[in-house]
Order: sequence, then C-alpha cells, then structure tokens
Amino acid sequence: MNAPPTTTPSGGNHPTPAGNGPSTAIAPVDVVLFGATGDLAHRKLLPALLRQFKRGQISPQTRIRGAALQDVSLDDYRHSVRKALWRFAPEAAADSSVLEDFINLISYQPINAAQYGADWEALAAFLNQHPQRSRLFYFSTAPRLYETMAANLSKAGLITPQSRVVLEKPIGTNAESAARINNGVGTHFTENQIFRIDHYLGKETVQNILALRFANPMIASVWSSQFIASVEITAAETVGVEERADYYDSTGAARDMLQNHLLQILALVAMDQPTSLEGNAVRDAKVAALKALRPWGEGEELCRQVAAHTVRGQYGPGTVDGKAVPGYVEELGHPSQTETCAIMGAYVDTPRWRNVPFYLRTLKRAHEKCSEIILTFRPDCNSLFKNAATPGQAVAPAPDRLILRLQPDEGISLSLQVRNPEAPHGATGTATLMQLVLSAPYRAPHSDRIADSYEKLLLDAAHGDPALFVRRDEVEAAWAWIEPVLQCWAAENTPPMVTYPAGGAGPGLPVLQP
Amino acid sequence: MNAPPTTTPSGGNHPTPAGNGPSTAIAPVDVVLFGATGDLAHRKLLPALLRQFKRGQISPQTRIRGAALQDVSLDDYRHSVRKALWRFAPEAAADSSVLEDFINLISYQPINAAQYGADWEALAAFLNQHPQRSRLFYFSTAPRLYETMAANLSKAGLITPQSRVVLEKPIGTNAESAARINNGVGTHFTENQIFRIDHYLGKETVQNILALRFANPMIASVWSSQFIASVEITAAETVGVEERADYYDSTGAARDMLQNHLLQILALVAMDQPTSLEGNAVRDAKVAALKALRPWGEGEELCRQVAAHTVRGQYGPGTVDGKAVPGYVEELGHPSQTETCAIMGAYVDTPRWRNVPFYLRTLKRAHEKCSEIILTFRPDCNSLFKNAATPGQAVAPAPDRLILRLQPDEGISLSLQVRNPEAPHGATGTATLMQLVLSAPYRAPHSDRIADSYEKLLLDAAHGDPALFVRRDEVEAAWAWIEPVLQCWAAENTPPMVTYPAGGAGPGLPVLQP
Repeated sequence: MNAPPTTTPSGGNHPTPAGNGPSTAIAPVDVVLFGATGDLAHRKLLPALLRQFKRGQISPQTRIRGAALQDVSLDDYRHSVRKALWRFAPEAAADSSVLEDFINLISYQPINAAQYGADWEALAAFLNQHPQRSRLFYFSTAPRLYETMAANLSKAGLITPQSRVVLEKPIGTNAESAARINNGVGTHFTENQIFRIDHYLGKETVQNILALRFANPMIASVWSSQFIASVEITAAETVGVEERADYYDSTGAARDMLQNHLLQILALVAMDQPTSLEGNAVRDAKVAALKALRPWGEGEELCRQVAAHTVRGQYGPGTVDGKAVPGYVEELGHPSQTETCAIMGAYVDTPRWRNVPFYLRTLKRAHEKCSEIILTFRPDCNSLFKNAATPGQAVAPAPDRLILRLQPDEGISLSLQVRNPEAPHGATGTATLMQLVLSAPYRAPHSDRIADSYEKLLLDAAHGDPALFVRRDEVEAAWAWIEPVLQCWAAENTPPMVTYPAGGAGPGLPVLQP
Repeated sequence: MNAPPTTTPSGGNHPTPAGNGPSTAIAPVDVVLFGATGDLAHRKLLPALLRQFKRGQISPQTRIRGAALQDVSLDDYRHSVRKALWRFAPEAAADSSVLEDFINLISYQPINAAQYGADWEALAAFLNQHPQRSRLFYFSTAPRLYETMAANLSKAGLITPQSRVVLEKPIGTNAESAARINNGVGTHFTENQIFRIDHYLGKETVQNILALRFANPMIASVWSSQFIASVEITAAETVGVEERADYYDSTGAARDMLQNHLLQILALVAMDQPTSLEGNAVRDAKVAALKALRPWGEGEELCRQVAAHTVRGQYGPGTVDGKAVPGYVEELGHPSQTETCAIMGAYVDTPRWRNVPFYLRTLKRAHEKCSEIILTFRPDCNSLFKNAATPGQAVAPAPDRLILRLQPDEGISLSLQVRNPEAPHGATGTATLMQLVLSAPYRAPHSDRIADSYEKLLLDAAHGDPALFVRRDEVEAAWAWIEPVLQCWAAENTPPMVTYPAGGAGPGLPVLQP
C-alpha cells in the first residue's frame, strides 16, 4: 500500500549500475574514424568510446585509428582528443588513469580519403596486424567521399567479412544522390555490413516506443484512428545555424531533420506490430509504414497539396533567452531560399491510420528546445459528458493527450478528463470536467544518466546489431515521399517562405482536413 | 511546448475559489440535527455547515436546530459547538465574526426521540414558524430510533412535501433489520425524501470514477474483463476501535465498512454506462451491478464458497507508528467473534466482468491508512515481449495497474511497461522492460482543499439532489449478497477467525480462480 516509486526495475538480478556490460569477455575491435579531427568525432564519438571503455563494454585490446586529411603528429592528435574528452565527457575523463589507458588505444593516420595512395597502404598494414578482428569503419566526413572511401578500403583489401561501415547523415540530398551513395558503398559492402546511423534511434524514449506500444495492451488497443485524432512529432531547437551556416544553407531543415529523424519516429509510431523484435522484422514494419505515406500527387495536384499541407520558414531577428539574435539571412550574409523551419502534414494510408493527420515539424531558433511526440485522442463521443458547456460557465477541457518527451527531459505524460472538484453546483456534462496530467520522468532506475545515443549505437555497430540503424529501403521510401515537396518548394516557390521571429513559437501547423 | 501543469481547469469562466456557490440567492432551510450532542455532529456535520455558511452556500436565514436527549441550555450547547468548530474547522472558525453569525443560526431542543411528547410539539412550533421552508431532518442517532423518530415527526405534522430525511449508517445489521428501518421510515417519508448517506460517495475521487470512466474513451475502452485481470478495493485504517469498542463489537468490519462503502465503490467501478448522469440513472446502473454479484450458493456450497473466498480477522497486539498497541480482545476486555478485518472476493456476473475477481478488503490497525482502488491489467498476450526472462537475468516487471487513491492523498496513478534503459545487452522480451508509474495528485485547481464529503453531501441533501445517496434497492441488493457470508461466519465459524498483528499488512487476499 506504499506509494509506488516512479520507476520499478524488473525483479530478479538487476543489471549493475555499470549498465549493459556483457558478462563474457568482449572481442577486441579495430575502429577507424574517418573525419577523426572533426566536430562529431570530438563531441560524440570519442566521448562515447571513452565511456564504453570505462564501463568495460569494449575490450582493452581495442584499437582506435583516427584518420583525416590533416597531417598531425600522434602526440598532437592525442592531445586534441584529451582536451575534447575533458570537455565533452568530463565525468569519465576525471579518472586520469582510465583516460590515459584509453588515450593509449588511439593512433592516428593522415589520409587523403579522395585518392588511393601510400596512406591507405599504411592503414592496411596497421589493420592487417589483426586480420581476423572485427573492423568498424566510421565515415564521419563529407558524404560525397563515402563512395571513394569504400572503394579505397576495398582496393586496400580491408573489407573482411568481419568489417562494418557506419554512415553518418546526410546520405544524399535527394533520392538520386542517396541512391548513388548507397550504390557506391553497396558495391563494396553488403547491406548487412552497412550501418546508416540516425542518432534519434539511439534515444531511449524513441526505443521505448516499441515497449510502450507493444508491452501494454491498454496502449496497444487505443493506438489507431479509432482513438487517436492526430499525431504531432516536433523537434525544436533554440540554436540558430551560427558557424554551420554554409553547410546548413546547402541542406535546410527538411533534409537535416525531417527526412531522417522525424520520418524515423513517424515510422515507429505508425508501423503495425512487427513479427518480432529482431532488427529486420522491426525495419520491415517501419518501411511498410514509410511506403504507406500518402503520395502528394503530380503536377497541379502536387503543388496544391504541398501548398496546403507544408510550411517552410526562415527565422528573422528576435530574442532567445533574453538575448537579441540575428536572423538567418543576417547570419548567412546573403539572401537564401533555405528553410530553417519545415512542417509537413502526412497521412499514413494503412487501415490503422485512416485519415489521421501526422504533423512533422522542425525548427531552429524556437523559444525552447523540445523534441516530443504528441498523440491527441478523439474526444468523448458517448452521450454522458458530451453536452456543450453552458454559456458563461466552464467549457470542455482540452482532449486527452499522450506525450512522449524526447528532449530536454525525457518522460511520458498522459492527460485525462477528470471531475473538477470546483465544478459549479448544477454544472453538467463537460462543464464538470478538468484536465489531469499524469506524468513520470523516464530515467534509468539505478543511474543518473541515460546513455548517449552514440554510446548505444556505436556498441550496437561494434556488435553487428543492425536493429537501430536505417536500412536502405527506409532511406528510399523517405526520399520518395519527401522529394516532390522539396522540388515544389524549390521550383515553384510554393508555399512561399514565411519569416518567423527568432525565439517565438514558430509558424503554426497547416490545417489538414481528412 | 511547456511542460503542462498537473491540473488544467477547463477554460472560460472558472468557478471562483469559493467553489460551488450557486449564482442565485439560496432559499433558507431549516435543519434539525437529531443526535446533535454526538460525535458526528461535532466532528463533521456542524463543521460542514459552518464552511458552507462561510462560502455563502447556505442562506443566512438558515436555522439549525440541535436535538438530543441531553437537557442542556442554549448557551451551553452553543459553547460546545463553538469548541468543536475551533477544533474541527479551525480555518473557518478563525474568522470570529463569521463564527458568531453562524453560532447565532443554532438553537437547541432537548428531545426524547423514543417517545412523543411536549418536546416534539415544541419542535413543531419552532418549525411551523416557516411552514413553506425546506426541512432537512438529519438522523444521527442509534438506527433503532429511526422508525420512531419518523413516526413522531409525522405525528407532529412536520413532514411537508419540502421535507427530507438523511439517514446515517448503519441502516440495519442484516437484510431484515434494514427492511424494517426502510419500511418504518418509508411509512412516513417517500423514497424521494429519504437520503441514505454514504460519505464515501461524497469523496471527490469516488465521484471522479464516473468522469474517468466515461469522459475518456481510452479508459472506457479498456474497462472490462478483456483488459482487466482483477480489481482490489481497499479501506485500511491504522486506528483500532478504542473508545468505540462496544459499538464496534456489535457491528464488525463487514457491516461497518464493506456492506456499504466498499460495495458502493464496487458498484461505481463495475456498473455499465448509465443512460445519463442524472441521479436515478446512475443509481439504476449501480443497482444492476450490485444485483449481478454472484450469489454464494446455499448449504454446503455456501460454506465452501465462503471458506474459499472470504477472510475474517481480528488484530492482535502489535506496533503502530512505533507505539505498542493492545489487541482487539484486550481493548474490548472479553473474547469476541467480531472481525476487525473483512475480505471478500466477488464476481460481478455481467458480460463486462466475466470471471474478473473483485477483492473487497477493510481492516483496522493496518500499517498505514490507505483507501484505494487498484485495477490490474492483464499482461501482454501478444508475442513481442512475452518470452520468459532468461535465468539469472531480470524478470518481467509487475503488470500494468491503474490506481485511484482515495485516502490519504487523493490521486491517480498508472503504471506502464517501458524499456529499461539499463537492460543488459542482448536482453530480449520482458527482460528489457521495467515499470514506469505515471501519477498525479487529484486536487482542486484553485484551492488547497477538497471539500469534505459531508460538506458536499449536506449541500446536495439541502438542494434535494439524491444522486450521491443510496437508494433502497441498493441497500437491499448489498444485504442480499453479503448476508449469507455473515450467517456462515457466525453460525458455522467458517472460515475461522485469523489473528493479525496490529501495524502489519493484514491477512492476505483469498485466491479466486475464475
């Protein structure tokens, strides 16, 4: 009869606070980080590897080979890594003996990714010291280099059956360039060896969509158009483009966020139950949902649909956290037709989701950082509480909603209609109701910190578990749906770009009428 | 995108913090409290009337006539009331001008309830100063006096069409004595004038059962045997019988709590959707549920069922809140066959609840005060997460539960299966799950305090709204189900009385196999 704690781990032998460490000895892996001097390597990949090393999740025999164009010495590279780890993984780097043991796993290889030469031979000599080891090639460079790098790895004889390649986004800027990259890399690696990373899939709340949907009969039974009126998937950031302006201007919000992260979440929310939790079963179910996205039509119909159901916006000057910030065009220094906010309304044409609008929305310079999935339930349609509120009295509360919050504070909330204890005497129907929000933070039961997406995903790639990586047909289905919109935006200037003030709520959702 | 507040009142014109005050002038009522010197009058009824008066919910012309056997002066009675209000409604009594205005509404009438005489004539003279006024006769005496008091009121010509009578529990100790009281009072009052009070029905969380069930399609859709495995309705108290030992020993837990409060809650949980929220529609639905309680059978079958599906217990000595307390028999001073804990397992034989066990449980001297309704959902029966946990690994978390907490802190919680962020690498099925508890306190949005049950119910009785009072056929259905158990307990000593230590969890639930 005690008040239950917010989280109760399953009984029996709990995992140790150290987390998901396997109990058997871990085979060592050779990791090659292409783009090793870049931002992602320093901010995310090396910190993730350090944390795994500290928790005993990777073998002390692991070798990490940085590879990049810059001709820096081993000492200089290690020094830059050490600095990055102090900054981006301070809790793990605080243990200096662990840190130095980890640093000693790291070596550096100056390499010209675009051209085969002695540097590639040197990499081969290094890796061939352990020909049987699993190899993890991490491509964190400009995507135009992916095909060449794969070819060079192949030419150097480095792609063994135990090799895997991780591809960072963006994989192309449209269906054609995506196909070119996928074909290029696919010439040398099998699809099973290719791990397209989408770090949203590593977020616990995103992975939890499966558990929430399929381990709770109560939730499973209402997860359809019969109960759900609409779904909103939002990723809002307070940051602008800042030093990334040039990259960003060639990409835009739709390609940077919506085509990959938001459509992946849509797929997990919309898919039917997979036949198992095994990676390809889940990806089969996801790709079926993506392929069921209602096409936009062609010609005039396409433009009409895109005009009605999408929004593109650019932030203007405004105020974020009390500080005046410039608009996108001012940051960039020249006019641009690149959107910093993309909103698309979609229908998933499966029996489950008949005419339920899915709103996908991403923007920069929003008033707060917030990634969340909102499922809005249909209001009560039985007779008991349906009468309209009496004029001058309370009106009906907002409909029930289930919110899965991904950022900044992961958690779940469910709002329900309850009786308002202060309902006026004689009030009836909806006038007696108010909204009550049940909520819980979503946290690990024994540790303060949920593992970063990259920690989880790097470990999966090292173990060869593809479940949380994006399969080629998913990429293709996403492009097939989104590319007509981008073409219409670019070629027809439809709908026109709207400017929204930095630090505001951003443009409103388009109105979808089923 | 802000985190939603825990409670959001419905929009539009909110009710004022003063609560459910009607906007039009309130007709004055003459209230006669029989048993006016008793515990209930001082602890609950007069404090409730003071609070209503302070909030403007009863007219300043209201007259409150205390009536009891004691021959005390008006001054002495008012003084005892003032003391009680300081103690039991201190926040309302703190305003001394309000308090004195309220005290001035009170008069006192010494009366011999059992015998008609000049005292009744005096009461008549008082009331007949306002022959058209609504009259509220509140019977808070020994129930054996109810019939005589009704007859005396009738003889004195005091039962006008605008008169109502409130009957306190216990209305009888079995079906026959309940019928005698109902018939006796019913000779003089129509059923519409009789307000059988069950203060559990005045609790907001209990009233909220209707809103929760019927204003949320998501909840409504799972409220059946298809999703719910069992229902537990518990009322546990830490107190023992103490000075009430003599009364209690003639009553016992089943009659004191289970036959009325717990079966009323069962009726609200189990009933089908009423045709409207109007009082008799809700009571029609409740009585249908009570009449569907599976009978115990007769003869040997009865004893077998009662032995298997009920528990009766007496608390022995123990420790409550760190203090040694005596057992029930020690408090009473002689042996007894009266139970201080009653548990009954019930089935409600409607299509909605086919073979779902309802456990009704009440006990004194529990380790904590707790009244709650627990709905336990059936576990996942699809294939995704159903595999048993690997030996040595985590096992499946507890099944999903919806808990409506009535006391001490009103609130709602819902536990769900979610992904355990610390699930061991390679874990599958239920081993990857943990329980997450979403919860919210259930509070009035604008005021600190939810109105006491008696405040709400007295106001309803004064307004003639019978929705939250118990209709005669409900009492009869409850007795029809419970009386065979009590007979079996008394006549057959089956099941035997168990002794449980004071301050413990109490006896366990019987095992019901559908």
